[in-house]
Amino acid sequence: MPEKMNLATKFGLFADHWHPRIIGEVNGHQVKLAKLLGPFDWHQHPAEDEFFLVIAGRLRLQFRDGQVVLEPGECIVVPHGVEHRPIADDETHVLLFEPASTLNTGSERTARTREHLERI
Amino acid sequence: MPEKMNLATKFGLFADHWHPRIIGEVNGHQVKLAKLLGPFDWHQHPAEDEFFLVIAGRLRLQFRDGQVVLEPGECIVVPHGVEHRPIADDETHVLLFEPASTLNTGSERTARTREHLERI
Repeated sequence: MPEKMNLATKFGLFADHWHPRIIGEVNGHQVKLAKLLGPFDWHQHPAEDEFFLVIAGRLRLQFRDGQVVLEPGECIVVPHGVEHRPIADDETHVLLFEPASTLNTGSERTARTREHLERI
Repeated sequence: MPEKMNLATKFGLFADHWHPRIIGEVNGHQVKLAKLLGPFDWHQHPAEDEFFLVIAGRLRLQFRDGQVVLEPGECIVVPHGVEHRPIADDETHVLLFEPASTLNTGSERTARTREHLERI
């Protein structure tokens, strides 16, 4: 029998920012949780669309042509190839749904790239 | 610039039960919302894993070897091939991630099958 997961419990298992954890796998896609704080880097994912759902806090997503601000219960799909920069002015918790191949820093490998994500 | 979506607003756009709506597409997978009430049919999806996140209400998922009860903020992945039967004793709102090929009644076509889901 599959086991259920409580998002609050899962978020309690880690504290660091910009380091997504995998909580589930769906046919080659992954459900991830991440804690965000501060500005991230501009990036784009050459082949991967990304779904963000804000669970707590407030996520500013900058695009080259404007900004979207997401509150809890709000979500967005960022299509592949679209440059974006996530910024969390206060700690923000998000749920992500994206292909397993998705690198957190997109097409660039930087000091903030997380190559191997843990399953929690 | 991609547009954000508010889950409460999207759930306000439809009232019928067991009739998922698509709110986003992520590389051949879909993000869907559904309102559930009462018992659904036993089914399994031969090739598609399914992620459920309860947004409001309470979802009972029966399996052949037991039952999982999900409250808001709780989620589960039902792997392909695993028979399950969703039951909502009161109206329940769920968010689903699954491959675009997923039929709501799984491997069987019944009177409750929804062949073509609307995008809202």
